[in-house]
Amino acid sequence: MLLKGRIQNMRKLGAVSFTTIQDYSGSVQVVWDSEVTAKTGDAVSLNGTVKEDVRAKSGVELQGSEMKVVASSVEEYPFDITKNDLNMNLSTLLDHRTLTLRNKKVHAIFKLYDLFLRGYETAMRAEGFTEIKSPKLLSAASEGGANFFKVEYFGKSAYLAQSPQLYKQISVGAFERVFEIGSTFRAEPHFTTRHVNEYISLDGEMGFIEHFTDITAMLNKVLRNIFAQMKQEGAQYLELFGVELPEVPEKIPHIKLAEMKKILKEKYNHEIPDDTDIDTEGEKLAGRYAKEELGSDFLFVTHYPMKYRPFYTKPDPESPEEALGFDLLFNGLEIVSGGQRIHIYEDLMAALKQKNVSTEGLEFYLETFKFAMPPHGGWGLGSERVIQKILGLESIKEAVLFPRDVKRLNP
Amino acid sequence: MLLKGRIQNMRKLGAVSFTTIQDYSGSVQVVWDSEVTAKTGDAVSLNGTVKEDVRAKSGVELQGSEMKVVASSVEEYPFDITKNDLNMNLSTLLDHRTLTLRNKKVHAIFKLYDLFLRGYETAMRAEGFTEIKSPKLLSAASEGGANFFKVEYFGKSAYLAQSPQLYKQISVGAFERVFEIGSTFRAEPHFTTRHVNEYISLDGEMGFIEHFTDITAMLNKVLRNIFAQMKQEGAQYLELFGVELPEVPEKIPHIKLAEMKKILKEKYNHEIPDDTDIDTEGEKLAGRYAKEELGSDFLFVTHYPMKYRPFYTKPDPESPEEALGFDLLFNGLEIVSGGQRIHIYEDLMAALKQKNVSTEGLEFYLETFKFAMPPHGGWGLGSERVIQKILGLESIKEAVLFPRDVKRLNP
Repeated sequence: MLLKGRIQNMRKLGAVSFTTIQDYSGSVQVVWDSEVTAKTGDAVSLNGTVKEDVRAKSGVELQGSEMKVVASSVEEYPFDITKNDLNMNLSTLLDHRTLTLRNKKVHAIFKLYDLFLRGYETAMRAEGFTEIKSPKLLSAASEGGANFFKVEYFGKSAYLAQSPQLYKQISVGAFERVFEIGSTFRAEPHFTTRHVNEYISLDGEMGFIEHFTDITAMLNKVLRNIFAQMKQEGAQYLELFGVELPEVPEKIPHIKLAEMKKILKEKYNHEIPDDTDIDTEGEKLAGRYAKEELGSDFLFVTHYPMKYRPFYTKPDPESPEEALGFDLLFNGLEIVSGGQRIHIYEDLMAALKQKNVSTEGLEFYLETFKFAMPPHGGWGLGSERVIQKILGLESIKEAVLFPRDVKRLNP
Repeated sequence: MLLKGRIQNMRKLGAVSFTTIQDYSGSVQVVWDSEVTAKTGDAVSLNGTVKEDVRAKSGVELQGSEMKVVASSVEEYPFDITKNDLNMNLSTLLDHRTLTLRNKKVHAIFKLYDLFLRGYETAMRAEGFTEIKSPKLLSAASEGGANFFKVEYFGKSAYLAQSPQLYKQISVGAFERVFEIGSTFRAEPHFTTRHVNEYISLDGEMGFIEHFTDITAMLNKVLRNIFAQMKQEGAQYLELFGVELPEVPEKIPHIKLAEMKKILKEKYNHEIPDDTDIDTEGEKLAGRYAKEELGSDFLFVTHYPMKYRPFYTKPDPESPEEALGFDLLFNGLEIVSGGQRIHIYEDLMAALKQKNVSTEGLEFYLETFKFAMPPHGGWGLGSERVIQKILGLESIKEAVLFPRDVKRLNP
């Protein structure tokens, strides 16, 4: 058979040479009885005859003949990309992204990411969600606040979408269940291990819910399906990191924020002031609690104070100071934020007034609610955080192909 | 069974009432022996017993009982969305997008679009392509020219991606075959029926090609698979528009630009000056030629003059003034642009010099080519144009959920 690919690795054993050739579909070992003149990293084409070999990992290796170098490096690689672990500092890793992506482990991160995207698309479609693509250039900042990027737009100003929030809600009015995989932009000026300024949000929004737990139940089911599929098809990539993919429980535990704070204080002596969100350390401890006490890598923390949630958030009728919303923690990292939305026009107008948000630029959004919007809600999932957490990557930037931060617009 | 959805339509026949209820999975007719108090457009929940009825389109209808109005309109609809054809001018249609999306035919456009996206994902994965997500915030304009939007980025300037071109090429170095579905931004100041300023580009890029026709062959196969799938699963939506989905030929005909121009002149008396691209009218005539003379709705026009193609374009070794590139016309509209890229570092440096393009900000891209890049190429497909053309929509804006043009940032 004709095989084309890149030499990932080579070694000699007496007169015999072994080369690992990687192509789009995977890697295979090719054995040579003669000297191999090509170098590691070269793009080659060759002829190979299949020979079954139980010692080879895949159970198959090829006997090679007629190797042709298609393209060779004109310089020495600035580092050894064939190493198992590159052990580079983050900034070098990213500066040389075009080459470090060829390292087997780095490569595996994005093969897993590909599986995650596919899993989401498949699982959402199976539940009857329609895929939409909403605009990223907006006339007003969708989530309010100051964390938006401004764009020069034909002599006017536009803003980059901080989320598809308003558009996915509108779309529920027409399609009932929608999902989107799209670029999201946040002008957050801070450097952390879990923030980038541009990321891919996996959104979902569904109508005709009875209770906000219909949303958490749907998300639970979707994640369970994705993880089950990734476990099977991503085994070879997970193995490189020595990690086992956790199972998503059939019912991820729910806990109210107030209750969680109480536990953090009593159990871990970690006190969080009444009026603030859980901090990073608190999230980690909450993850530990979920794992140790509830046997789950996942935890829904619900009922955040209304005053910190955006204007479209629905309050709990039984405790109007608390939101019918949730964050989903995965091993102590927030990967999803979601909740039920206000669906009644008058309530929405009152909420805007109370939050002191102008209706200017929101007219089109508000119009929807005059025309029989069903109770609805949904979520936004930070896709790169999931991969970061699955593989135990120190920074989220390792899980983004070409990440953006305050100082980085290159590569 | 419990059914929740929106009343799409209702009528009375003597004492019997009929309501069409639409939910996320489709529409069904519900028959009532008593008066129905809800209005068209209301969100309702009801109990229904299945009764087989050969007269009903789907072969199934429900006998309804206990209808409950979940949400009702607080105003009269400003127009009748139950009509088969809204017959609105484009601007009104878009201003009221939140409501017009609920019209059956408008709704169908985006159900077809959803099928198209799914088809692309499925077909590309079947061919071993890895899904990537490249950044949309760039430090330099990826395609050069003046058609880019400028973003304020933490005291510096960034630019919105005009295509994922450079990033998908780099990714070929690591994954060999990649695809992306992503937002693309073009600051083109003109109004036409086939341009929007933000669109979803379906990109593909593949390595280890022997000839640029490996790319057209792959695209051909992918489109053929998508159309076959859409024909089956989109039948109900296509029917509303009275259109039959064309078959993508097993081998879409190829024609060189120079030859095409000659034919346009000789056959249709349509002369295009030597130094210019085919104009809109010429594209239409080329589409007519493909249909009438070659029996194909699709036509690859190849070998455009190098001087109009971007710096990374590979010239034909046999006629270096011409590019190994192509446009794909679908019924006379360009839906894809693609070609083979320069993969040799020295050639790329020479091309940049010749095109007078600075290497500044391209260092990371150029580095890739020092390290054994295989011959490669790919395409960018304007997804909304395909839907526009399939359904015969007058403007591409009808095929974009919330389109953006020079004057429109709302809704």
